[in-house]
Amino acid sequence: SRSKATLRVWLVCPGLLGCFLLGFLTGWFTKLTEKNPNSPYISQNVRQKLVAEMKAENIRKFLRSFTKLPHLAGTEQNLLLAKKIQGQWKEFGLDSAELVNYDVLLSYPNEKQPNYISIIDDQGNEVFNTSLFEPPPQGYENLPQHCFFLSAQADLVYVNYGRTEDFFKLEREMGINCTGKIVIARYGKIFRGNKVKNAILAGAQGIILYSDPADYCAPGVAAYPGGWNLPGGGVQHGNVLNLNGAGDPLTPGYPAKEYAFRYKVNEGVGIPKIPVHPIGYHDAEVLLRAMGGPAAPDNSWKGSLNVPYNIGPGFTGNSSTRSVLIHYSRTTNYLLHSPHKNTTYNHTPIHQNYSLSGHRDSWVFGGIDPTTGAAVLQEIVRSFGKMKLEGWRPRRTVIFASWDAEEFGLLGSTEWAEENAKVLQERAVAYINTDSSIEGNYTLRVDCTPLLYKLVYNLTKEILSPDEGYENKSLYESWLEKDPASENNSYPRINKLGSGSDFEAYFQRLGIASGRARYTKNRKADKFSNYPVYHTVYETFELVEKFYDPTFQKQLTIAQLRGKLVYELADSQVIPFDCRDYGEALKGYSNRIYKLAKKHAEQLKLYKVSFDPLFSAVVNFSKAAAEFHGRLEQVDKKDSVAVRIMNDQLMLIERAFTDPLGLPGRKFYRHVIFAPSSHNKYAGESFPGIYDAMFDIESKADQHEAWEEVKRQISIAAFTVQAAAGTLQEVA
Amino acid sequence: SRSKATLRVWLVCPGLLGCFLLGFLTGWFTKLTEKNPNSPYISQNVRQKLVAEMKAENIRKFLRSFTKLPHLAGTEQNLLLAKKIQGQWKEFGLDSAELVNYDVLLSYPNEKQPNYISIIDDQGNEVFNTSLFEPPPQGYENLPQHCFFLSAQADLVYVNYGRTEDFFKLEREMGINCTGKIVIARYGKIFRGNKVKNAILAGAQGIILYSDPADYCAPGVAAYPGGWNLPGGGVQHGNVLNLNGAGDPLTPGYPAKEYAFRYKVNEGVGIPKIPVHPIGYHDAEVLLRAMGGPAAPDNSWKGSLNVPYNIGPGFTGNSSTRSVLIHYSRTTNYLLHSPHKNTTYNHTPIHQNYSLSGHRDSWVFGGIDPTTGAAVLQEIVRSFGKMKLEGWRPRRTVIFASWDAEEFGLLGSTEWAEENAKVLQERAVAYINTDSSIEGNYTLRVDCTPLLYKLVYNLTKEILSPDEGYENKSLYESWLEKDPASENNSYPRINKLGSGSDFEAYFQRLGIASGRARYTKNRKADKFSNYPVYHTVYETFELVEKFYDPTFQKQLTIAQLRGKLVYELADSQVIPFDCRDYGEALKGYSNRIYKLAKKHAEQLKLYKVSFDPLFSAVVNFSKAAAEFHGRLEQVDKKDSVAVRIMNDQLMLIERAFTDPLGLPGRKFYRHVIFAPSSHNKYAGESFPGIYDAMFDIESKADQHEAWEEVKRQISIAAFTVQAAAGTLQEVA
Repeated sequence: SRSKATLRVWLVCPGLLGCFLLGFLTGWFTKLTEKNPNSPYISQNVRQKLVAEMKAENIRKFLRSFTKLPHLAGTEQNLLLAKKIQGQWKEFGLDSAELVNYDVLLSYPNEKQPNYISIIDDQGNEVFNTSLFEPPPQGYENLPQHCFFLSAQADLVYVNYGRTEDFFKLEREMGINCTGKIVIARYGKIFRGNKVKNAILAGAQGIILYSDPADYCAPGVAAYPGGWNLPGGGVQHGNVLNLNGAGDPLTPGYPAKEYAFRYKVNEGVGIPKIPVHPIGYHDAEVLLRAMGGPAAPDNSWKGSLNVPYNIGPGFTGNSSTRSVLIHYSRTTNYLLHSPHKNTTYNHTPIHQNYSLSGHRDSWVFGGIDPTTGAAVLQEIVRSFGKMKLEGWRPRRTVIFASWDAEEFGLLGSTEWAEENAKVLQERAVAYINTDSSIEGNYTLRVDCTPLLYKLVYNLTKEILSPDEGYENKSLYESWLEKDPASENNSYPRINKLGSGSDFEAYFQRLGIASGRARYTKNRKADKFSNYPVYHTVYETFELVEKFYDPTFQKQLTIAQLRGKLVYELADSQVIPFDCRDYGEALKGYSNRIYKLAKKHAEQLKLYKVSFDPLFSAVVNFSKAAAEFHGRLEQVDKKDSVAVRIMNDQLMLIERAFTDPLGLPGRKFYRHVIFAPSSHNKYAGESFPGIYDAMFDIESKADQHEAWEEVKRQISIAAFTVQAAAGTLQEVA
Repeated sequence: SRSKATLRVWLVCPGLLGCFLLGFLTGWFTKLTEKNPNSPYISQNVRQKLVAEMKAENIRKFLRSFTKLPHLAGTEQNLLLAKKIQGQWKEFGLDSAELVNYDVLLSYPNEKQPNYISIIDDQGNEVFNTSLFEPPPQGYENLPQHCFFLSAQADLVYVNYGRTEDFFKLEREMGINCTGKIVIARYGKIFRGNKVKNAILAGAQGIILYSDPADYCAPGVAAYPGGWNLPGGGVQHGNVLNLNGAGDPLTPGYPAKEYAFRYKVNEGVGIPKIPVHPIGYHDAEVLLRAMGGPAAPDNSWKGSLNVPYNIGPGFTGNSSTRSVLIHYSRTTNYLLHSPHKNTTYNHTPIHQNYSLSGHRDSWVFGGIDPTTGAAVLQEIVRSFGKMKLEGWRPRRTVIFASWDAEEFGLLGSTEWAEENAKVLQERAVAYINTDSSIEGNYTLRVDCTPLLYKLVYNLTKEILSPDEGYENKSLYESWLEKDPASENNSYPRINKLGSGSDFEAYFQRLGIASGRARYTKNRKADKFSNYPVYHTVYETFELVEKFYDPTFQKQLTIAQLRGKLVYELADSQVIPFDCRDYGEALKGYSNRIYKLAKKHAEQLKLYKVSFDPLFSAVVNFSKAAAEFHGRLEQVDKKDSVAVRIMNDQLMLIERAFTDPLGLPGRKFYRHVIFAPSSHNKYAGESFPGIYDAMFDIESKADQHEAWEEVKRQISIAAFTVQAAAGTLQEVA
């Protein structure tokens, strides 16, 4: 019954003369205008027409257009790209497209004094220096280089992947102390920021990250441009902050607007206090070759360079008097304030709403990350615009957003979430992320809230598989066959949400049902990390067109799935969440955490640790969910208030799992059921409070205290699940 | 359209065999049953009939009945009282009445070894001891005594009221160091817990609290039972915890259910680590008489005992070798767990709801506090029950609650708020407190959210004044004449909500619009603190009947006002909040805080402190409120979804002012506009974050840092107000 004849889009705008930009693109469709006589007819056809409207060729054109230049956050190029997208969104027919501005902390290398690493002899001479730049691919030679990494001189220690278990191995089994050393870790397995955090905890005074061919070259594949493997000069860019959901490091919890209070840079959240520098494997080989000390403890510590993978510390033989120096000439910490003197505010009148959002900024060209996502978003917006121009309106407002500064720590998306937290918590139905639509070309990968399982399964059954050998089969069928779930192979695998992309603030902090979908590699066969040229200058349009998705069919498939998710969430009379799947998921997670706990059976007894309250709460939730679902099926669809009451309950289920007190030491992660793993930000951990309390428990000094914390976390989890069950009870 | 034919009440139940009880009484009326053909007719008359139904004589009977025995939280008597109330609520016709149980930390004196204070001579002899018990009033002699106060031997220092400014005077102007001393403070002006906190901060090793006749005896009035003044043996009971909204000290943030994790008592929130003992003025006179040291700095430090009010430390003359000993034999810290082995859960299916709640537990008989409130609640419930039995149903669920353990730190109400936080945040419309309905008999006193100003003014115009000389005039008229607002004397005064009663968790933590109303003394003429026998054994039925409200008309008036508030909030189609008054209030508060800041004009310039963002946000809020109100007046009342959308916005306005991160160091106070003052829990402070950052700023070691915190708090306030304005924007 609410009707508005506007369609809007918001867009990024610069903080200061083209050198800095942050923000988002949103557009929304307001509710179906009852006065529009064509709408009912049009509405019926939209489900089909919307998907039919999407074309692989358009995605190709958008990808080509968006990847011609680098578009690092805060640069003029990225502002121009934002304006281009804004213009197109307006043309497509959105009600509005606006730029929103935040002034956040970014960090660029000093281009006149680039960072590098030297081997220093006993005379202080630099006998070897790592390269200053990645060799640019052909056709892109005249472009500036960007690198975001943060002087230390010491002996090197090789720490494998720099994981928690790697440092345990070094410190506890091998007796190697990293205090005061420079550690060298290979990329892969976990988020690089966790490696840096672990190095700091181990007392290192610097950390070098490198890409080992074992992790970044697939067997039998040529290096780019001949193939899709990482060249020896390729360097993975990426931020190494441990923000834990804070967004802009200087304005944790609040939007980085003109009036925001800013901490000093040395007080900022998650900024490492030691230099960090990434290198390619050609340079790494030189550093690793001469290392002494014990040998790698086993093959899992060996990469595929022609070096012994000795642990150190330091070099051996002729080189034993040499040390390593990180030249960290100083990153420029930009904090640019808006030139506007007046405090102005923009607002989002959002009804129960649905959002499709992904980032636009990239380390260099962003050929895959994020532009295969941004191009897909563009085609989806175009298709929705087409439907709108034909007279259709969704029931719920749809917001499209093109985030900036994702690569610097999810900054644009987090600041916008902070600014709009109240309205989002009151009214947001769901958030679908649209980062890279491919990271491989083997099969579908979905990470989402259990509320969306059913919808994802149903929609993938309606989409044709783009896979070779699956002609005329559904996406669901190829997905199920290629990647069945471990716990029940009659369904395709769906992963837990962790972090590493812009859904974080929406899901982990605000408790908005979220999901993401992309094409991925073969998890069993392909042992390389990410895709080999991830976050390098070699992520180009040509990489995608020649090697990953020549027909753009995989990306089109993702566009269809993301587009259908938007459509169903925005236009279904009853929000298409199934809360029973949350009950099932909770059951699995509680069994898993209990299984972990049972490894300490004696302690459980000694310290009177019981999981019964958690099991009981999960049973109660499942029961409440089943009853709720029963009532939902009976609801009188003509009674708009009755439907709205149930939609409100559905909308708020995910919110019910959040705790305003947050997780221990990670106050912006408020979801009690899911969090990014403390050991690898990319991975989702279930019951993270309990998991973290139990992690490595034997090593804790005070066992009584350690188990008390486990008990406290079980209690919080049980309470939260129980409270969530309470929100499903019938509204009297 | 939702309909349920049940009316329920929840009631307290014991944690363990009658010796311990906590919980609440709730009852609710579900929405108007459309199938009931009589409802529309009945509904029209309810507004009048409900108030006409209430009788002073009934309130008298309830008061008499409820005050025969002491009903301290956790005692068998209080359980029996809960059961009695439960039974009556059922009889009255509520849909249900349930007991809810929490196991919380309570503390009782060791009756076999009561606490007392001695003067010790240089031989270690006790040359004077304070009394062990208050002399009970006639007719109540055989009743147990209860006292909740927590060994220290040292010289005494007299600290006046023990306020922040009193300790500043001592330490900064008089150079008196309280470290290692026992301080003696007179009751009055501020919450006793703040006195204890200040004493601890000053380094005291014990604190004695006493009631000075200057503060607890009105001129020309006899001591009870001859009059309503405090007898010399009367001792004010009361808790001295600094919980800052945590509820049960061992389960902060979470409900104290069977499965709850409990901290150890020595880790509990807000429990003072020094002995605290309260005495009457007969005993105090002996302690104060011989004190030496400098004289009281001015008359504001002098009470009306026949002693010099010297500051100390220690005694003078013959007594100079004597010291004071607090015999703190040990309070019993009760922590009783429920005997039930199974974890069971009860839930509250609450639609948009409205709550009327007050506490039932008292220090002794609770003649005024809380039973003049509990009796009024009982009469209101009876009257609502009558309407229900005649076929009426309110639009919104009404929950009545009889809280336990308010006196121990708002425990029952806070635990229930914690258990039901999610559902309350989603659906609660308002909370009206029903503690003591009188604390004097001069005029009305109201403390409430600005959202309720208009409703309170309108309703008091419909109620007849019970005041002598105001026959046939409205309550509004007598109130306006007797207590006009300071800032605008064309309206009666309404105070800000602080704490000190059960609304705290609902308003300060959860952001639910709240209010309280009672009869009070003459603020200009009556200089005594509280009412003289407050929290003593002399708070009896007779006190009320003989001295405070012989006709029970004042209590009836409060019943009418509270009852009408319930009715309007529960049954109006549009929630009767006026958000424009919030804008006006914010304007006043921002001007006030800026005026305070301007005392430091140079620093404001030096440290670039600007209040402009706050002023700008307040202007934006007012504008958004005016626009919202305009739309509200235009809304099509027949469009139930449109009305519901606006009701949702109205309901969530108060919530929009909360910040999940809480105030600095007080994480359970989440309301950014209001908080209990850090210097006196009873008083409400506006913009408490800014106020606290500016308080006593000159004394701070690092001025730059101090003003940075002011700036940070201004920024948070501006952001919050702006975000609240955002929630008022039209829902598209």
